Amino acid sequence: MDKEKISIVCFSGDFDKAIAAFTIATGGAATNREVTMFFTFWGLNILKKKQRHSWVGKGFLARFFNFLMGGRKTLPLSRLNFCGISPKLMTHMMKKQNVATLPELITAAKELGIRMVPCEMSMQILGIKKEDLVDEAEEVAGVPTFLDNSEDAKIIFI
Amino acid sequence: MDKEKISIVCFSGDFDKAIAAFTIATGGAATNREVTMFFTFWGLNILKKKQRHSWVGKGFLARFFNFLMGGRKTLPLSRLNFCGISPKLMTHMMKKQNVATLPELITAAKELGIRMVPCEMSMQILGIKKEDLVDEAEEVAGVPTFLDNSEDAKIIFI
Amino acid sequence: MDKEKISIVCFSGDFDKAIAAFTIATGGAATNREVTMFFTFWGLNILKKKQRHSWVGKGFLARFFNFLMGGRKTLPLSRLNFCGISPKLMTHMMKKQNVATLPELITAAKELGIRMVPCEMSMQILGIKKEDLVDEAEEVAGVPTFLDNSEDAKIIFI
Repeated sequence: MDKEKISIVCFSGDFDKAIAAFTIATGGAATNREVTMFFTFWGLNILKKKQRHSWVGKGFLARFFNFLMGGRKTLPLSRLNFCGISPKLMTHMMKKQNVATLPELITAAKELGIRMVPCEMSMQILGIKKEDLVDEAEEVAGVPTFLDNSEDAKIIFI
Repeated sequence: MDKEKISIVCFSGDFDKAIAAFTIATGGAATNREVTMFFTFWGLNILKKKQRHSWVGKGFLARFFNFLMGGRKTLPLSRLNFCGISPKLMTHMMKKQNVATLPELITAAKELGIRMVPCEMSMQILGIKKEDLVDEAEEVAGVPTFLDNSEDAKIIFI
Repeated sequence: MDKEKISIVCFSGDFDKAIAAFTIATGGAATNREVTMFFTFWGLNILKKKQRHSWVGKGFLARFFNFLMGGRKTLPLSRLNFCGISPKLMTHMMKKQNVATLPELITAAKELGIRMVPCEMSMQILGIKKEDLVDEAEEVAGVPTFLDNSEDAKIIFI
């Protein structure tokens, strides 16, 4: 029998939503499901290399957006984010409770065979190049490819 | 064989999420999928006629909400929206990269046969009338109709 | 024939998104669909008992988070929430239009046989105990259980 397939669209760059996406993804892959994560818009932020200075957009506007978006260490919480305190707070709480943190989840996702695909159109809009993303990222793909791959999958938009 | 069906619930009125919804919708329809978009709560904002003064809610509270919600030209970005700069910025960037803008996507969606259905309950809550919406909008429908139409479809909540 | 199954992941604690989740859930259950709601992260807020002082997290950080999250009476609107005006405003507008309010929807959901399941991992992170939640909540469950239960269901992430 075919594996159940799950496609997760990671639209949000918020730390808590990223955690939710990876938790569902790794939980699914660990229980023998075939999981693809499609990173689009702010979600691309999750796949950024850590060094902020490695972000060199094509033009001024792209650079401005990249500045606003920050790097993987600085993902905002969707609801609580005064002074950048909360993501650190949650990471701290997650560690205390032995729940995996984001970089651990990205590594685990790769090891579990989860495909992490950056969205072509978003990368063009934001002036992001493939080499700006972590090595775990797959080749970029467009919406039609995403939909074809999700034909017999559940789609979860986060 | 039947066409694959995709139902997109457009709950958010944020500009970037609207772009994501229409990108998936038009990408799906262009590749021979049957796509329905169901506009609810803030998502109704996307279907508003441009003229802000055409928004005449039934009572004071509805008018107040409509004022807060603004018009299609002023959809906020979900994350970056200081002084209304960012939607213009993104539209600008999208044009530079030849990615379609929102009004273009609405027109394209209609031409591709995508059904854009306003949610009945949300319209009642917000005091919005059918004539307040763009001509591309279908007849209003309730949740049971939406679920019936989505019976053999993927549901994507944005 | 088997009932159609719908799994709703309630990630957000925003008032308007909670209303949307329960509207889809009760609309689905009322039309003979089998609906499960899985409450995770901020969504757990929806299932909190009213009394804020009943929230006793395990440690200081958990208490701090609980303080920030507030109680069921104070769910923020996702977009409009200055001075806590808007949730009251929307409840007022919903009553005027005879649309059910959140506590009514929770009760109705239970009566319609909807299962409301709190997420185990989120409860651990946030230091929430089963007795902190309303009686309508089912036993806590983890992601694998959620995915198993959603195997032949639509998943809607809100």
